[in-house]
Amino acid sequence: MAENNSIGIVAPQTAHFSEPFTLKSGEVLPQFELVYETYGTLNAAKSNAVLVCHALSGNHHVAGKNAEGDKYAGWWDNLVGPGKPLDTNKFFVIGVNNLGGCHGSSGPSSINPDSKKPYGASFPIVTVEDWVNSQARLLDLLGIQQLAAIIGGSLGGMQALQWTIAYPERIKHALVIASAPNLTAQNMAFNEVARQAIITDPEFYDGDYYAHNTVPRRGLRIARMLGHITYLSDDAMGEKFGRKLKDTIKYSFDVEFEMESYLRYQGDKFAGEFDANTYLRMTRALDYYDPALEYGGDLSKALNKVQAKFLVVSFTSDWRFSPDRSREIVKALLDNERTVSYAEVTALHGHDAFLMPDAHYHSILCNYLQKIDTSTL
Amino acid sequence: MAENNSIGIVAPQTAHFSEPFTLKSGEVLPQFELVYETYGTLNAAKSNAVLVCHALSGNHHVAGKNAEGDKYAGWWDNLVGPGKPLDTNKFFVIGVNNLGGCHGSSGPSSINPDSKKPYGASFPIVTVEDWVNSQARLLDLLGIQQLAAIIGGSLGGMQALQWTIAYPERIKHALVIASAPNLTAQNMAFNEVARQAIITDPEFYDGDYYAHNTVPRRGLRIARMLGHITYLSDDAMGEKFGRKLKDTIKYSFDVEFEMESYLRYQGDKFAGEFDANTYLRMTRALDYYDPALEYGGDLSKALNKVQAKFLVVSFTSDWRFSPDRSREIVKALLDNERTVSYAEVTALHGHDAFLMPDAHYHSILCNYLQKIDTSTL
Repeated sequence: MAENNSIGIVAPQTAHFSEPFTLKSGEVLPQFELVYETYGTLNAAKSNAVLVCHALSGNHHVAGKNAEGDKYAGWWDNLVGPGKPLDTNKFFVIGVNNLGGCHGSSGPSSINPDSKKPYGASFPIVTVEDWVNSQARLLDLLGIQQLAAIIGGSLGGMQALQWTIAYPERIKHALVIASAPNLTAQNMAFNEVARQAIITDPEFYDGDYYAHNTVPRRGLRIARMLGHITYLSDDAMGEKFGRKLKDTIKYSFDVEFEMESYLRYQGDKFAGEFDANTYLRMTRALDYYDPALEYGGDLSKALNKVQAKFLVVSFTSDWRFSPDRSREIVKALLDNERTVSYAEVTALHGHDAFLMPDAHYHSILCNYLQKIDTSTL
Repeated sequence: MAENNSIGIVAPQTAHFSEPFTLKSGEVLPQFELVYETYGTLNAAKSNAVLVCHALSGNHHVAGKNAEGDKYAGWWDNLVGPGKPLDTNKFFVIGVNNLGGCHGSSGPSSINPDSKKPYGASFPIVTVEDWVNSQARLLDLLGIQQLAAIIGGSLGGMQALQWTIAYPERIKHALVIASAPNLTAQNMAFNEVARQAIITDPEFYDGDYYAHNTVPRRGLRIARMLGHITYLSDDAMGEKFGRKLKDTIKYSFDVEFEMESYLRYQGDKFAGEFDANTYLRMTRALDYYDPALEYGGDLSKALNKVQAKFLVVSFTSDWRFSPDRSREIVKALLDNERTVSYAEVTALHGHDAFLMPDAHYHSILCNYLQKIDTSTL
């Protein structure tokens, strides 16, 4: 039941693809499944579809709840719903769990139909390009030839960008938020530390921990704690926790400061929910993405065939995907004389800002999305 | 033998303290040892001594070599020696390994003279204040009543600052480099992730891994890899490694990018040399240091009794101990009408810059140190 202009209760669906799918690595998946949700109604012209791409730890459950008793709604529920910036009264919105994920789409923790055992380490390494190609198959299945818009933040923004490169004629508008045309060395370094924490966990078993009835919980916990530091700005952590003590100083390695309690909680929670093999693959996809690579590092050349109109959004305090990186995308689009709007939102919350219901940020998205003509392809 | 105006060969010395030593935590060490080195000659007036305080992973071996065949000289050899900025023709320079360390001073890996076994987890948690108090005992032993200068970078800078607070009459000049009056929440968060990596390593055994003939190598390796990211600026990592591949992309979790190779090498090296229990204590000392705490957060009040003259140096690209934090120290000193020089050095290398022989940086230190009058106390 819808309340507070929420989507209400939604049910995930599963699409099965039985044609072989060749990945960027050269590996071939003989078959795969994608789990997805949709919100709103596809119009007769099939011209009002919007695909939402998720980031590192996201999934297909973008908005609404899957059951009455669910404590939390989807991860972008503040954005997607009737009367919300991504208005489901106007748009037919699709959320999909990426290939390699751990929320229903084929991934390392899924049962390999051939072996009847979890794929584990044998599940291939997937890339942003692979995700976009697999999402294109989903759109084919849904009979959607062109998207009114593709939207994503962070790693989701990379997918949005890649869609405009790989399928220029299928994207009318691309909303690329808190993203970058590739990772900096520092970003890749954080990913590497996270991966090494997982891989060197004695319970990782070379990725085949399912067979040992265990998970590399310690490593995944460390990876997530580290991630959380980089999603928040120094100032946001300062404002949220500062140097606040839990109690009087005990001169111990137990929780002394409130921030420590927060990080441990986030790490524990995530390690109990998420699949480590998926985490490894998501960070690798981030590392590899670099559309300019085959153009000698020239992003303008990489975006030469793009047809979409763009809205690029960055946040001033985001040091993981800084405004500078968004401006690189804007510049490359302008070099190609494409239509691009750019907003640099003053926000305290660092990279996490793209998930938050900041009024200024949401009004920018709302204004842009309202102007999209969905009457025809 | 001295070459390239090096100190030449130096031998560490050990000072034994048999009077009970009460720590800030309230715990009492019945006895302890400090290992130290000296460079240059103490003058008759004992007025030319300079104490060098080390940072997280440093030690007493500041300059020169301990044996002819040593591959590397001390960690600040580019600064300390005859004719160098901290000129041993003029100054009597002392390097000391901090209490709780793992290079000869009493620490968790030392043999407890009472039990004849390593202290392990029973070694108390030490603070910046404890280090300064123990260093004061060393100066007493050496017959040095007042230091011509105290100098340190990062955590070493915190010790330099603390010396001027705890022993105002014993410090003529304080050189506080790439430091801060306390850690930000983000800094403490990185420390917490590093500690959790160590503590949750199955080979940590609650800190008593010596008894199990092992070390929490995996955890310490992760801690060090993470540390290295924060010592370098994003730009420095970009310049040093960028997105350079080791080879062609292999679609694997092995080393793909050169930066990964660097981080793994640094992590492995450190994990084979350093003691994890010491690492835990060094990071906790960083967390706890906050001289303004007992003055309601007012650093100016905390520095009210300081007598030393100051040189404060920061580096533009240092995001771990940013220039803003150094300016807080400068402001608090100026509030108290103390003499303070401040230099904000344009440098690419982030926090690591304080260890590097940048010409501008070294000329600032050299000019300041040359003007110090060492003729009398």
